[in-house]
Amino acid sequence: MTPAQPPPLLLTLGEPAGIGPDCVLLAFDAQPELFNNITIAAPRLWLSERAQELGINIDIVESRSLKSLSRVGSLLCWNPLPEGVAFGNVTAGRTSASTAAAVIACIEAATHACLRGEASALVTAPIEKAVLRDSGFDFPGHTEFLARLAGRERVVMMLASSQLRVALLTTHMPLKDVATALNIEDVATSLRITHHDLKQRFGLSSPRLALCGLNPHAGEQQHFGDEEAAILTPAIQQVKHDGIDVAGPLPADTLFSPQMRKEYDAIVCCYHDQGLIPIKALSFGDAVNITLGLPFIRTSVDHGTALDRAGTGKVSYSSIMEAIKMARLMLMNSIAPEVNRAG
Amino acid sequence: MTPAQPPPLLLTLGEPAGIGPDCVLLAFDAQPELFNNITIAAPRLWLSERAQELGINIDIVESRSLKSLSRVGSLLCWNPLPEGVAFGNVTAGRTSASTAAAVIACIEAATHACLRGEASALVTAPIEKAVLRDSGFDFPGHTEFLARLAGRERVVMMLASSQLRVALLTTHMPLKDVATALNIEDVATSLRITHHDLKQRFGLSSPRLALCGLNPHAGEQQHFGDEEAAILTPAIQQVKHDGIDVAGPLPADTLFSPQMRKEYDAIVCCYHDQGLIPIKALSFGDAVNITLGLPFIRTSVDHGTALDRAGTGKVSYSSIMEAIKMARLMLMNSIAPEVNRAG
Repeated sequence: MTPAQPPPLLLTLGEPAGIGPDCVLLAFDAQPELFNNITIAAPRLWLSERAQELGINIDIVESRSLKSLSRVGSLLCWNPLPEGVAFGNVTAGRTSASTAAAVIACIEAATHACLRGEASALVTAPIEKAVLRDSGFDFPGHTEFLARLAGRERVVMMLASSQLRVALLTTHMPLKDVATALNIEDVATSLRITHHDLKQRFGLSSPRLALCGLNPHAGEQQHFGDEEAAILTPAIQQVKHDGIDVAGPLPADTLFSPQMRKEYDAIVCCYHDQGLIPIKALSFGDAVNITLGLPFIRTSVDHGTALDRAGTGKVSYSSIMEAIKMARLMLMNSIAPEVNRAG
Repeated sequence: MTPAQPPPLLLTLGEPAGIGPDCVLLAFDAQPELFNNITIAAPRLWLSERAQELGINIDIVESRSLKSLSRVGSLLCWNPLPEGVAFGNVTAGRTSASTAAAVIACIEAATHACLRGEASALVTAPIEKAVLRDSGFDFPGHTEFLARLAGRERVVMMLASSQLRVALLTTHMPLKDVATALNIEDVATSLRITHHDLKQRFGLSSPRLALCGLNPHAGEQQHFGDEEAAILTPAIQQVKHDGIDVAGPLPADTLFSPQMRKEYDAIVCCYHDQGLIPIKALSFGDAVNITLGLPFIRTSVDHGTALDRAGTGKVSYSSIMEAIKMARLMLMNSIAPEVNRAG
């Protein structure tokens, strides 16, 4: 590695029985130059066996040390697993409790490398939550796990495409619990994180945010709910004092119309489907999941493990490519090398 | 009127101080042939004064009887107001309690004409609910008022565009109340109404429906809410016994992606924004509001009264045109003349 070379981007495979390995292999096969300075944080075997199944002939290099890896035209694997962690016996399409510990250990090792500044960003393929839960993984998903590892109390899930950026105030919870999960402090914190990261990582000098109302027509002057008046408006007023530009709360149904969505750099949504419905309607396959509020850049695909397609070759790898491109774009636009300062 | 001429379509202006009159006048001015066999259920004055403000020169004919109206190239008004109902003094942009009774009376008269078979369909411009409420109008909106007049306990709000049709299980209520508002019987009834009207009024012989889950990822095997298992799935099973084709409950965020939405003739949504966000994101200005389950055809614009634009001429009239075209299309596709049978 030349001294000028920045630290590599790390990519984790998620569930090795899912389509994570397929997407990486197919994307590398189609566009090897996209993987310049990318290292896969996984045992080589998870990729080499799947490559054989798919009939893809790729040079895959494994090292036990992240720093020593560099070879143009090869797919680079850093195997971070301590000796003794079982990682073999992956059957495409069939999850197994035997790999759960290794899956978690790879994500952990990759995250710590980012936190130490030995990697510049993290790109993740999807995990199979049910398998990990049975092995004691006590997080609703990747995002919450990474937040814990980084010691951050609150992070923000964003989905971004060429059409739209949406940020979520709440994520994976029953719809009936959303209203009670909102409070002024947390909403204000999420608005601050979104504003901060749009400046810090997207290179926007004056980000324009809009906040969706929770209720239909943003409550229509409290005829259909009062969370707009009781929570959302006070949170907006709070962050406006810090010079953060937030419009709203605005009726969510018209906010995603073509005329309105282009007015804002990100639309902050009260709940999962309020943000994910429009971005997937407008940009399916092209949307990237981003975690804001971490001390490093993290992007992810917008699809699941698709176990039934693993090993079949019938997989779209556009989302992993978009996740990689988004991480690179964010690195390029980052106004200060936070990842190195954290090291 | 020749004997072969079907009964006219009736159009109500809604709030006369809003943009309803503007939209009608501008649309007539741009495309008078669209108004062939359309009658405006309103006093002529509400249109003629606005026409003057807008500088539009149109022949507007008023009659006190619906049946006698017919003149090519003129905008026809049927004034259904009983003598003594005040309807004057409309100022563009300024609502007034003095016109509330007349607004309600026009909608009532037009609805009764449809129920008697003297009109073939109803197209409505937006009302200003706050003004009507203050005058004792005790309905969340048009839809519920029409249902009451027609003696229907349950109707279904649909929005339709060239891209998508969405039907709603609940409409104007706080988000936190949606989960408890759902029950198996009502969901099943809404699915039946949607199926019935897609056959009856859209000419689809075997409508394909999909039902959205309420919770993120449709609850992900009850990890995020149990309404899918407790309410939505049993409702689907119930209507499947009647031969109704309904898929779901499916994760709402992916259901509106281009690949999936084209598989269905309508997507049934649990709440207002779940359906209105995607259709307005994909088809703003082109979406038409339709009430299913009434004994007559009713369409409406997808916008509000926009009081600040009334009388300015800066108004898009595409939505009223789409609402008229949709009503005509539904009339053409109706497999049995229910409106006449009701007469």
